[in-house]
Amino acid sequence: MYAAIEAGGTKFVCAVSDDKFNIQARTHIPTTTPSETLGAVFAFFDQYTIEAMGVGSFGPIDANPASPQYGYITTTPKLAWANYDFLGALKAHYAQVPIAFTTDVNVAAYGEFKKGAGQGKQNVAYYTVGTGIGMGYIHHGQIYMGSQNPEAGHILVRRHEADTFAGACPYHGDCLEGMAAGPAIQQRWGKKGKDIAPNDAAWAIEAYYLAQACMTTTLFLSPDVIIFGGGVSKQSQLFPLIRSQFTKLLADYVSVPAADDYIVPVGLGDDAGITGALLLAAEQL
Amino acid sequence: MYAAIEAGGTKFVCAVSDDKFNIQARTHIPTTTPSETLGAVFAFFDQYTIEAMGVGSFGPIDANPASPQYGYITTTPKLAWANYDFLGALKAHYAQVPIAFTTDVNVAAYGEFKKGAGQGKQNVAYYTVGTGIGMGYIHHGQIYMGSQNPEAGHILVRRHEADTFAGACPYHGDCLEGMAAGPAIQQRWGKKGKDIAPNDAAWAIEAYYLAQACMTTTLFLSPDVIIFGGGVSKQSQLFPLIRSQFTKLLADYVSVPAADDYIVPVGLGDDAGITGALLLAAEQL
Ligand SMILES: Nc1ncnc2c1ncn2[C@@H]1O[C@H](COP(=O)(O)OP(=O)(O)O)[C@@H](O)[C@H]1O
Ligand SMILES: Nc1ncnc2c1ncn2[C@@H]1O[C@H](COP(=O)(O)OP(=O)(O)O)[C@@H](O)[C@H]1O
Ligand SMILES: [Zn+2]
Ligand SMILES: [Zn+2]
Repeated sequence: MYAAIEAGGTKFVCAVSDDKFNIQARTHIPTTTPSETLGAVFAFFDQYTIEAMGVGSFGPIDANPASPQYGYITTTPKLAWANYDFLGALKAHYAQVPIAFTTDVNVAAYGEFKKGAGQGKQNVAYYTVGTGIGMGYIHHGQIYMGSQNPEAGHILVRRHEADTFAGACPYHGDCLEGMAAGPAIQQRWGKKGKDIAPNDAAWAIEAYYLAQACMTTTLFLSPDVIIFGGGVSKQSQLFPLIRSQFTKLLADYVSVPAADDYIVPVGLGDDAGITGALLLAAEQL
Repeated sequence: MYAAIEAGGTKFVCAVSDDKFNIQARTHIPTTTPSETLGAVFAFFDQYTIEAMGVGSFGPIDANPASPQYGYITTTPKLAWANYDFLGALKAHYAQVPIAFTTDVNVAAYGEFKKGAGQGKQNVAYYTVGTGIGMGYIHHGQIYMGSQNPEAGHILVRRHEADTFAGACPYHGDCLEGMAAGPAIQQRWGKKGKDIAPNDAAWAIEAYYLAQACMTTTLFLSPDVIIFGGGVSKQSQLFPLIRSQFTKLLADYVSVPAADDYIVPVGLGDDAGITGALLLAAEQL
């Protein structure tokens, strides 16, 4: 069986599948301390014969195999997990099992590339807009990594002229994540995104920031598609707003696919990450 | 011999080298019409026996080999060259010569990667700050291309609080190029960059925009080094200003090399492009 872990800051999702990627069992484990959480993870997987494992982790993680801290969760505010050798702990328990280890957004990007809204494309940018904003990128069919993984959720954005919110990023204040992730929406409007009406002006402001992310993504990476997942992206009225603001910002400087095909919601819903982790597991064999 | 063309909007630089990349002859040809300019280019190269050619072209160009317009200069404001099949014209004249065809910034990035300030690095971002702003990127030793080449010179930037200049980009007004390329400096201050004193406040404003480019480059690409070339980058007092503003903007969110090693001037001076084009020519054999 293939094993998949989507390790989030709130919960770990673990699943096993057959070699056709049909999920046979799945569980949710709260993210508490490494020993407690991984204890439960091991208890779940130990019920099965695992051939290979794919892991998408919250982070930032060190994903550079040449680094001495390869496989560590590094500077997370979740202190029990800061500077924790996550991959090392998995390898200690599963010495014989090949393990693919990357970020949570990279596994979701990979799932969408292979089986979701990025199928048939070569260059797939995937954004999650949830508790934070993260981007994973598939470049010519491979997970993109430079010296480290991209952290495009923290790019600087231009403030919307009607927006006076200071920004919620502890590092940058009003960066993309600081202005457009779920907590920023909640702090700006005093209520959660899911409680804001679809026709509220809040969504035009949100779309303005996400359109800037699409523009910068286009100019740096030139992907074939930009996919949005995560809780905030469930607001489907955002997509036409993002597309029209993106088109205006780009001003036809480079040619891109029709906006309806270029800026799209996830195809796999909440299963993008687990699907990508299973696919990466299989590729270890 | 290897042949190199650095095709700019003002002039073409052509050179031939031996197989150790020692330049044997070089000429400058004004960029007028395709037939006139290429006539002079062919007259120069026809004096030599050319084994392979590397071309770095102004653009935008279509550099996607799968595209029907592959090898064309596309939407340039230089109308005689718009929608011109540049690679096709070269191939018609040099039917037996393998030709590497990419952007002017990509050849310079490649030259700096192999023989300049990017030597020994794997992921090298190169910016030219001259008449325009362009970026070329070497990713794990290869010229990066997504669906098309990056056009990172046109990303949105935040306006410096002391800057009231409207911006000079015909597409975006106050994008990076619109605020920080040579013509923007000249229009903002009413004189050319080379006539502005090194300690003038103009350079802090310039550095603020280039620091934003470094931040966005870091967050999207995670390169090992960011190299600046082009006329404006000859103002060496810019580098400490860019580095300190970059460090402040990034706020230690991701770890990068020491700023002095990370944000650097070209190592090959004005020869980066020709060097890269010769290297790419050799790799065609
Ligand atoms: N349907 C929704 N509409 C708008 N915002 C939502 C919705 N669902 C979740 N969110 C917001 O997204 C954030 C949670 O993101 P989510 O992607 O669900 O999880 P996480 O990022 O923690 O993995 C919260 O800030 C929440 O308010
Ligand atoms: N030493 C210098 N200091 C400041 N600006 C310069 C300098 N040299 C050239 N420039 C500016 O750079 C632009 C020309 O860029 P350059 O890189 O020389 O050529 P191009 O981009 O056309 O290939 C002009 O706007 C010019 O004013
Ligand atoms: Zn931030
Ligand atoms: Zn522009």
